Amino acid sequence: MTTPVSFTDPKTLDEKIEETTRFAPKFGPDGLITAVATDAETGEILMLAYMNAEALAKTLETGEGWYWSRSRGELWRKGGTSGHIQRVVEIRTDCDQDAIELVVEQTGPACHTNRRSCFYRTVKADGTLHFRD
Amino acid sequence: MTTPVSFTDPKTLDEKIEETTRFAPKFGPDGLITAVATDAETGEILMLAYMNAEALAKTLETGEGWYWSRSRGELWRKGGTSGHIQRVVEIRTDCDQDAIELVVEQTGPACHTNRRSCFYRTVKADGTLHFRD
Repeated sequence: MTTPVSFTDPKTLDEKIEETTRFAPKFGPDGLITAVATDAETGEILMLAYMNAEALAKTLETGEGWYWSRSRGELWRKGGTSGHIQRVVEIRTDCDQDAIELVVEQTGPACHTNRRSCFYRTVKADGTLHFRD
Repeated sequence: MTTPVSFTDPKTLDEKIEETTRFAPKFGPDGLITAVATDAETGEILMLAYMNAEALAKTLETGEGWYWSRSRGELWRKGGTSGHIQRVVEIRTDCDQDAIELVVEQTGPACHTNRRSCFYRTVKADGTLHFRD
């Protein structure tokens, strides 16, 4: 069974994509849109991933974070195996509607390495990485 | 004159990309890596854009945000025309090193619509967008 997916095609908008009140997500040539999950409490970035139309529809319908795994080539419910699910508090889109921010309550660590956030290393000018904590 | 660009190729790493202290950014087939700029003071997401190797190198060298404009097909110094530059406070990468977070001090609005952040609309379940303020 596939989820019925219907989003407004941005090409059909008769007003500027920056000022419209219609949600018209702009998926790339690969059918994906970039999504950043941020922590509802701290605001920090937890992870960056990709959604196809079905993942975005499921996220809207279920109130949980769903993504498209580029490496596995499959729809992916965040936390489906680990239990580290994301309850969506708010969904935002950007000026040209080609990116999504998911404000979430994250159960457990967001990163598959069991760290709270995937962004746990800083880049130094000498080309090394430092672990943030 | 082109900037000399040399990053470690992730394929040459002999340790896990998640645990290495070597910066080995993973550019996509299009030569781009996704970059999210966040506000150094508030932590909020300001914008999401893309970098090629040269933009990433220039960001590291100059301490200012540089990107690759996919629509214009050119290297782009953020604020080069508007004056709304980004002073980079910290650069982070994620577990598999295919995304960048730039923590920045943003001069003026980050968005080309003159809003502080590009993520100024929330997505509602009925497919409409609400302006955040």
